[in-house]
Amino acid sequence: MEKSHLYKIFSDPVHGFINIPKGIILKLIDHPYVQRLRRIRQLGLGYLVFPGAEHSRFAHALGATGLMQKALVNLKEKNTTITNAEYEATMIAVLLHDIGHGPFSHSLEHSFIKDFHHEKMTLALMHKLNEEFDGALDMAIKIFTNQYAKPFLHQLVSSQLDIDRLDYLKRDSWYTGVSEGFVGVDRIIKTMRVHKGHIVVEKKGIYAIENYILARRLMYMQVYLHKTVLAADKLLMSILKRARYLASNNQLEEFTSPALSYFVKHDVSAFKGISDEIIANYVLMEDNDILMSLKYWQFSNDKILADLSKRFLNRQLFRATFSKKPFTDSEIADLREKTAVALHKRGIQASDDDLNYYLHFDSSNTEAYKYKSESIWIFDGDDKAVEFSKAADTKNVIALTKQVVKPYCVHLKEVLV
Amino acid sequence: MEKSHLYKIFSDPVHGFINIPKGIILKLIDHPYVQRLRRIRQLGLGYLVFPGAEHSRFAHALGATGLMQKALVNLKEKNTTITNAEYEATMIAVLLHDIGHGPFSHSLEHSFIKDFHHEKMTLALMHKLNEEFDGALDMAIKIFTNQYAKPFLHQLVSSQLDIDRLDYLKRDSWYTGVSEGFVGVDRIIKTMRVHKGHIVVEKKGIYAIENYILARRLMYMQVYLHKTVLAADKLLMSILKRARYLASNNQLEEFTSPALSYFVKHDVSAFKGISDEIIANYVLMEDNDILMSLKYWQFSNDKILADLSKRFLNRQLFRATFSKKPFTDSEIADLREKTAVALHKRGIQASDDDLNYYLHFDSSNTEAYKYKSESIWIFDGDDKAVEFSKAADTKNVIALTKQVVKPYCVHLKEVLV
Amino acid sequence: MEKSHLYKIFSDPVHGFINIPKGIILKLIDHPYVQRLRRIRQLGLGYLVFPGAEHSRFAHALGATGLMQKALVNLKEKNTTITNAEYEATMIAVLLHDIGHGPFSHSLEHSFIKDFHHEKMTLALMHKLNEEFDGALDMAIKIFTNQYAKPFLHQLVSSQLDIDRLDYLKRDSWYTGVSEGFVGVDRIIKTMRVHKGHIVVEKKGIYAIENYILARRLMYMQVYLHKTVLAADKLLMSILKRARYLASNNQLEEFTSPALSYFVKHDVSAFKGISDEIIANYVLMEDNDILMSLKYWQFSNDKILADLSKRFLNRQLFRATFSKKPFTDSEIADLREKTAVALHKRGIQASDDDLNYYLHFDSSNTEAYKYKSESIWIFDGDDKAVEFSKAADTKNVIALTKQVVKPYCVHLKEVLV
Amino acid sequence: MEKSHLYKIFSDPVHGFINIPKGIILKLIDHPYVQRLRRIRQLGLGYLVFPGAEHSRFAHALGATGLMQKALVNLKEKNTTITNAEYEATMIAVLLHDIGHGPFSHSLEHSFIKDFHHEKMTLALMHKLNEEFDGALDMAIKIFTNQYAKPFLHQLVSSQLDIDRLDYLKRDSWYTGVSEGFVGVDRIIKTMRVHKGHIVVEKKGIYAIENYILARRLMYMQVYLHKTVLAADKLLMSILKRARYLASNNQLEEFTSPALSYFVKHDVSAFKGISDEIIANYVLMEDNDILMSLKYWQFSNDKILADLSKRFLNRQLFRATFSKKPFTDSEIADLREKTAVALHKRGIQASDDDLNYYLHFDSSNTEAYKYKSESIWIFDGDDKAVEFSKAADTKNVIALTKQVVKPYCVHLKEVLV
Repeated sequence: MEKSHLYKIFSDPVHGFINIPKGIILKLIDHPYVQRLRRIRQLGLGYLVFPGAEHSRFAHALGATGLMQKALVNLKEKNTTITNAEYEATMIAVLLHDIGHGPFSHSLEHSFIKDFHHEKMTLALMHKLNEEFDGALDMAIKIFTNQYAKPFLHQLVSSQLDIDRLDYLKRDSWYTGVSEGFVGVDRIIKTMRVHKGHIVVEKKGIYAIENYILARRLMYMQVYLHKTVLAADKLLMSILKRARYLASNNQLEEFTSPALSYFVKHDVSAFKGISDEIIANYVLMEDNDILMSLKYWQFSNDKILADLSKRFLNRQLFRATFSKKPFTDSEIADLREKTAVALHKRGIQASDDDLNYYLHFDSSNTEAYKYKSESIWIFDGDDKAVEFSKAADTKNVIALTKQVVKPYCVHLKEVLV
Repeated sequence: MEKSHLYKIFSDPVHGFINIPKGIILKLIDHPYVQRLRRIRQLGLGYLVFPGAEHSRFAHALGATGLMQKALVNLKEKNTTITNAEYEATMIAVLLHDIGHGPFSHSLEHSFIKDFHHEKMTLALMHKLNEEFDGALDMAIKIFTNQYAKPFLHQLVSSQLDIDRLDYLKRDSWYTGVSEGFVGVDRIIKTMRVHKGHIVVEKKGIYAIENYILARRLMYMQVYLHKTVLAADKLLMSILKRARYLASNNQLEEFTSPALSYFVKHDVSAFKGISDEIIANYVLMEDNDILMSLKYWQFSNDKILADLSKRFLNRQLFRATFSKKPFTDSEIADLREKTAVALHKRGIQASDDDLNYYLHFDSSNTEAYKYKSESIWIFDGDDKAVEFSKAADTKNVIALTKQVVKPYCVHLKEVLV
Repeated sequence: MEKSHLYKIFSDPVHGFINIPKGIILKLIDHPYVQRLRRIRQLGLGYLVFPGAEHSRFAHALGATGLMQKALVNLKEKNTTITNAEYEATMIAVLLHDIGHGPFSHSLEHSFIKDFHHEKMTLALMHKLNEEFDGALDMAIKIFTNQYAKPFLHQLVSSQLDIDRLDYLKRDSWYTGVSEGFVGVDRIIKTMRVHKGHIVVEKKGIYAIENYILARRLMYMQVYLHKTVLAADKLLMSILKRARYLASNNQLEEFTSPALSYFVKHDVSAFKGISDEIIANYVLMEDNDILMSLKYWQFSNDKILADLSKRFLNRQLFRATFSKKPFTDSEIADLREKTAVALHKRGIQASDDDLNYYLHFDSSNTEAYKYKSESIWIFDGDDKAVEFSKAADTKNVIALTKQVVKPYCVHLKEVLV
Repeated sequence: MEKSHLYKIFSDPVHGFINIPKGIILKLIDHPYVQRLRRIRQLGLGYLVFPGAEHSRFAHALGATGLMQKALVNLKEKNTTITNAEYEATMIAVLLHDIGHGPFSHSLEHSFIKDFHHEKMTLALMHKLNEEFDGALDMAIKIFTNQYAKPFLHQLVSSQLDIDRLDYLKRDSWYTGVSEGFVGVDRIIKTMRVHKGHIVVEKKGIYAIENYILARRLMYMQVYLHKTVLAADKLLMSILKRARYLASNNQLEEFTSPALSYFVKHDVSAFKGISDEIIANYVLMEDNDILMSLKYWQFSNDKILADLSKRFLNRQLFRATFSKKPFTDSEIADLREKTAVALHKRGIQASDDDLNYYLHFDSSNTEAYKYKSESIWIFDGDDKAVEFSKAADTKNVIALTKQVVKPYCVHLKEVLV
């Protein structure tokens, strides 16, 4: 058989053609768990700020799988032994690394399930698939959970310089038009090698790494933590909280998508593990469950649910305001009062508790590079590797990557100018 | 006030920054009718073939509005008089030109409403908006319907070389990665001018126009009429037809989104015009109504609805096969028989009528440039304009633009190889 | 040794990273004959119209070598046998395919040497290199001259769909900013295969081929045969002719670069073959010989040489005017008279012969695709290949590719408006 | 007259179409002083490392002029008064800002003229042009020399965030393929405004500025101070020094371009100002004077000149090696000895002085942002502006911009591995 018949070609605007090997990888792509990612936006609520950024987690998973292939080929060219089984398993691990994601951003996760993290769900779904495929995912799961003997394979899937990040940074930069977030993915992959079982970057790649870390920082500042995105996030959390409150009082009468109903009307928790029932409902829940339900909730008799839902659908979002220091009690009290007045003007009598739907205090937190754990290592060609922050041209590069914590308040536009 | 405060800037990956004037245009953008376009994919089912192409009709509307501004500025620089009111009205007309679209492709339109075309709905919604905005859309509606005294404004909105096409060709080429479909939009806009009240293209733009016509042809061949897209289209039509059939027999028991329910469970027709009731339901219907309902229909007791829905969600699509000549009766009979056998193997006993869900005959039809009506005119600089097909360097260019009709059959993969 | 140490990486803006195998290929790249191409512009006089297009024939040679590698890898993946020696030889053939080029465009060739064509020089230099490298280029020369047993290797180097064209079309489109000339090089290479010893293109590549042929046509119309480029060409020919005339009368007193001197001051002919003396001088002659000499010729006592040179250096070029039919004798006579008057006004008394420096009649000629010889073949997957013009969706595509002959006159701006 | 007839359009691959107003600006572009920049490479010797980077200073001047226009339009939209005369003068200032450049990099300047800096020459040529154009450049010269009453106009031409840098960073990134050097020029220009007479950047542009500073740093590290470029630079300096030495002993017998001759054979100094004689020769000297002369110097009887020239032409360059600390005397002595031995092996008997042609010690020095003088100011919207390093999200950004000094040695490949 011709080698070219062994893969299927996808056309991707970010990376060009992506070759996906037929066999189990293509079968997994066609599986409902992966196809579901077509219906979950990669950037969560980012499309409300960047109208061109509607891309799905499916496109990201596909792109990461394609990039992983390039990375593995590059390592093999540098005499790293990677068996065919490992090659396939690593691609599977990156293809599936996000299947546990719920609708929109992960800040919503706890609105659905207590004691939950989407990685738990990813793993649960991987095990389900492994059963379905008679154990064919054993090695992929080991790699994903870092229990496989070659740690560099796990690092490619999940670390501070992994294929996941390389794909999503380039992809999100592309789709948002924030071209400053550009990452030289090809250059970085070409300078990777394995040293003592771990991924290192050759010295000539050091500036590309610097650029990568700073591009990541920039994408956080300009896109992922964009204040309108943060505000939309809180709005959606308020909506779900209100719906849950109404449901617990049997007052959620408006249409609610069946899968969303399950999570809104029950107290679902992952504390004791993820049951088959949870899974069955979770895999039916996509962005459209939220969007659909909101369309009807906007006509709810409950004024608060209706108001919040309308705001979301018609982009009358809250506003986020950053502050240099945490908000004081008196500032908070003042804002609460103003919020109550503003709502009153709109015909909404908000109880003290209700104000929390309209006023949120939180802080954004970004750390472009953590030099303590899972560091990036630079290979000096002399059989030695140096941790990036020490190898960098100026030790100060690393300063840029310090954790940045910024308190912010999400509020009605009229209460804080 | 600073002029720069008079517009809002959107970041678009295709055109870069788009300046949108505040005032009525921004208000319209924030209106539910326009925001709804965020939830309808520009390329319909194209994302099933091009995983990166998830962009919405909203992004297209915004892009077209930005391009229109450039086109109008260019014409003014060439001494064409355009009043501020005309300037605004033309931008409004292009912003709203697609608001009547329903979910996914327009081939679905008749699955919802008889005697319907989405342009009817666009106009109905424009009139609704005009009421809401106290007549502020009067001129925009005139321009849209070509009843305004300056026909070139209508041509910019809708003709063989309009801003709509310029945006969507470039946008779809960008998002699909089919870079051969690239159109030199800036060059074309820069060579437009008004001659005797109509849009003409300066002579130096003739090759850009040639490229535009051929790029359009190529996008039709490679994207819009991609055979997998055609096959997915027919599948979705079959699903809706089956749902409608079950509903008429009170057998559609599975969850159906409320808005979709309205259209599936009633015999809605636009024959007598578009009622307020139709509008109220239509503006709630988005891509997610279809996707949501399918998630539950896949578990229907009706084997056919369940089978078709599962196929769609998990991308086990039909296959389309083109033929050089129309299928003969005996070929059709043969295919029907094979289809019945294939379904039987899958445990589906299909009646003669039921076979139509699984077997479709149609023909694709493209015409990159119609030289009869609404032609593109080339301005020779000497106060004369020549129709494109006559001006072109070789009269044969036009040959390329002849209508191409290709019969095809959409069928189960196993019945025709 | 690591495979990655076997090649050197070049960073190219058009194709990204280019891997060049070390060994003889890299040695050839470092040879003076190839390095000389750094000092000859790929687009000849095109930079006078497209200021960004200063790229050299060296960059093109490198790009073509990189693309060739991709093409060969693709063919091997489709089970075509290509030995390591053939692989290397084909890359060498394409690397060297342009080394016989002289300064600027090939229209100048005959200003230097009679009975000459740059391909003769390419071959002569290849033989020189073959001697120097002890016969290591034997196979490359056979492939270049189509005497090798596998004709598809020659076709990759030189045919209607060769790697040479794929590189230069994409490169020239990139550097001129004429983005309509974009060619989907990756797509085309991926759809190539070998059938009965010849290159064919798989059916799914047919639209990419259509786009390629039309992009080529467009680049001819907008760039290669741009009328200002044609006019600059004729100007440079006039300059060289005048210098040669003065030299033959021992009146070329101004500085002339030594290599250029050789060709201007002697009657060099390739009729009896290319002597070592010709080669020795030719390989020293680059764009800068022309540019340098012109800098001094602009101060010549000969008014004509001075005037022509100044025009070139300061971009006071001639103008080209296309005509629908050949110029008539009376038109020509009229233009000659007007030219004489115009020159007189500038203080130049031009003899009848001298007018030929200022007035040229010629015709441009383009043929995007020749369907008679060396056709492009489309593979229909059934062990048959069809010639492109017959395979194309509409037989009319081919119309577009008809030869276009356009008479034009190059003249002083003031004599024809 | 139509406004569109008031400018000429250039097609630029980096910025797209550039509109250049007719009138004096276009006349200046066609002037020999500016046309000469077509024959001087923007990146100096960078093309030896990045084969695609052959772009000229002319393309940069044109690009900067186009960007300046965008910047001025933006400021006017923000209610900054800019008269038509100022508008034109600022564009002239940026168009001409580089006309004083000599061939290749400015490290060569002192090889030609003592006590010289190319900015002196720029100013001298501006004054010449001002005479020629009867004082029409008065205001442009004032702006260029920062003697005009509106300092923000000078800042646009020359400061730490000027149009010059914005164009060359984007351009050089584009042509080298070092895409990490990408700068979001449009975004930066859109966020500029004038505050108290100076250019400031609006708060929302802060990340774009951060990206700009770091991209600049990256371009220095990867391109401008690329070690092969540094090595080529030193080689060229050695060649000119040797030629000058031979000339002073009347031993430079090989062909030397007339203009270069002037500078090599005389002791030209700018100490007493720039004479007309110096100017007359300088404006004839372009990259091709160097390249031409080298072609003949490679055949010189002087072994050193011949060897050095051959190395340059055929890219057998020196090698640069960076060191963490300055080279010690004993290291230097050792390297000198090894160099002597290596040369001896090649048949070159080098005197102690001669070794300096083959061995250079220097240090590279980059400072991406100087926060002391001419700082970048961020406008906080409240009528206050804060210096960038204080405004930045983390004060540590600025750490990155500290001066980086790296000692290096340029040497024969064989003497230091």
